[in-house]
Amino acid sequence: MSATARLTMPDLAPAFPGPFPSSPHAEQVGAHLEEWLERFPLLAPSGKRRVLCDIVAHGVARTFPTADPDGLRLTADLFLWLTAFDDVHGEEAAAADPAGLVRRIQPCVHQLGGGAAPLGADPFDAALRDLLARLRDRATAEQYLRVAGCLRDVLFGMVWEAHRPAGDGDGDGSGGAGDGSVGFGAGGSGLREYREVRPHTVFARTLLALAEVVLGYELPAADRDTSAVREPEEAVADLAGVLNDLCSYARESAKGAPASLNLVPLLVRAHGGDLSAGYAAAARLAEERAAAARRGIDALAAAGPAPLARHAAALETIAHSYVWHVDHARYRGAGG
Amino acid sequence: MSATARLTMPDLAPAFPGPFPSSPHAEQVGAHLEEWLERFPLLAPSGKRRVLCDIVAHGVARTFPTADPDGLRLTADLFLWLTAFDDVHGEEAAAADPAGLVRRIQPCVHQLGGGAAPLGADPFDAALRDLLARLRDRATAEQYLRVAGCLRDVLFGMVWEAHRPAGDGDGDGSGGAGDGSVGFGAGGSGLREYREVRPHTVFARTLLALAEVVLGYELPAADRDTSAVREPEEAVADLAGVLNDLCSYARESAKGAPASLNLVPLLVRAHGGDLSAGYAAAARLAEERAAAARRGIDALAAAGPAPLARHAAALETIAHSYVWHVDHARYRGAGG
Repeated sequence: MSATARLTMPDLAPAFPGPFPSSPHAEQVGAHLEEWLERFPLLAPSGKRRVLCDIVAHGVARTFPTADPDGLRLTADLFLWLTAFDDVHGEEAAAADPAGLVRRIQPCVHQLGGGAAPLGADPFDAALRDLLARLRDRATAEQYLRVAGCLRDVLFGMVWEAHRPAGDGDGDGSGGAGDGSVGFGAGGSGLREYREVRPHTVFARTLLALAEVVLGYELPAADRDTSAVREPEEAVADLAGVLNDLCSYARESAKGAPASLNLVPLLVRAHGGDLSAGYAAAARLAEERAAAARRGIDALAAAGPAPLARHAAALETIAHSYVWHVDHARYRGAGG
Repeated sequence: MSATARLTMPDLAPAFPGPFPSSPHAEQVGAHLEEWLERFPLLAPSGKRRVLCDIVAHGVARTFPTADPDGLRLTADLFLWLTAFDDVHGEEAAAADPAGLVRRIQPCVHQLGGGAAPLGADPFDAALRDLLARLRDRATAEQYLRVAGCLRDVLFGMVWEAHRPAGDGDGDGSGGAGDGSVGFGAGGSGLREYREVRPHTVFARTLLALAEVVLGYELPAADRDTSAVREPEEAVADLAGVLNDLCSYARESAKGAPASLNLVPLLVRAHGGDLSAGYAAAARLAEERAAAARRGIDALAAAGPAPLARHAAALETIAHSYVWHVDHARYRGAGG
């Protein structure tokens, strides 16, 4: 507890001062999520489930504040599916049984590649089928393929996280180092890999791909791979991962030894220092990535053509939703 | 050996009588493959490597006999990359160290999702970068995304195969059952999963997606998800996997106990009988899938619009290349 008192959250106000616009449909989306979970019981009914639906609804209302209700529902359901899948089949369950996660993911990958959902499908398979049908209805073929690729990358990211070496003490409660490090050798190679995977497992890449579907624009092919588009996308996706790690590290520190794979101990392992210094370094990284996102979004918004400006607006509100989540879920014990 | 004498290869002549057209550029593609491997040494120089280049070149010349040299080179290099990746990082290496395979795949997935190749890239990462750049130059955005999705599915398939339960005797040489079964419980659930994964790991799905890129046509969006298109695609992709398994089972039987994951013992486990009966059942399945492919291809070719007829022609020659491979690599000890 004394260690957590020294954890200071990053100051994101210079880049994203708020208040953040929200959709007027947030409450309606929350009610829809509860109904959708009745149809596809990914999580058992509980107070925790109600809180999750509420957070997802209000988060998505900030992700795409100008979206129509159908687009918001699709985004919310997909985000909830990913969250629940990671909660039920990823994380601790996956660390204990990586092969079980791989086998559980197989029918999902099969659906993403165009195959049928298994007969007698469990709720995750059935819900994914529902999601992909709705996505297909709304998206162009190219947009659909892009989102389906992102979903594969999220699932692979969960598999990657589940294969950190055993006995490293992260997530297995076995009393190891408890530092959330991946142990992929010295020299920070684990850090590099983690930072490549994290934008996927925090779902930011999926939201970036979903923006065009939900908000109804298309980036011109010639612009998509330019640094003007890619750099702010990368900054927003990085920012999302770092913020999520700062939050979860602070929350887990408040309860005891942090157990999950996390940027903070990886920075310590790569660069030395204590965990407090690692936390401060991660917070600085968040501020740097927020500043880079701000610059890139402003440049893109000023670039002229309408789709670029609309993409800039989407990047802005996607960043908002992650920053909002930090504030919303700010763990009081973590200072800041 | 006495067991292998009873193994009879399927009769595919009714569906695909041959002779199969081949590209006039086969030799040139073979020479190119050798050069490409000098640039990206995925495999050490050896007689085996030369034979592999020759088989891939002549196989691809039958896959797309009307393709231009550039398209053939791209197909051949991609097919060789997948084969070499599976040989070096999949199969036995992966069964012994599934986590190692997952970590090796991570930078590939990162590139497929639009990320940069790692600095100081090893030959597989560097070669993948080369392949994706060439693919991007030649394909539409939609075609590129479709192929990139297929490549993720191949890599996931390798991960899935690496996670069959240990001690099952397949591939670990530990003196287990040696029957190549996945041991995923009774009732044939392992069989269903295997049959879903196999069209990817035999690379047939990748070739199906590559056809439009290499042969320069586009399926109309309205046709892509019709049963008229999907059913012959599925039949050809299934056929490819079954043929490959028949070949490798016969080859491994001739050497001793078959070690790799294979349809034959999975059929035995699901339906009973001995391995000879399982082999015969797999051979019948190949004949059934070949007949279904024949019917579907003929119907598609007669459907009228040019892209459907071109797709039918591509399905036909993709099937040829797998059937040709059976004949080319026919393992004399396996009868037939």
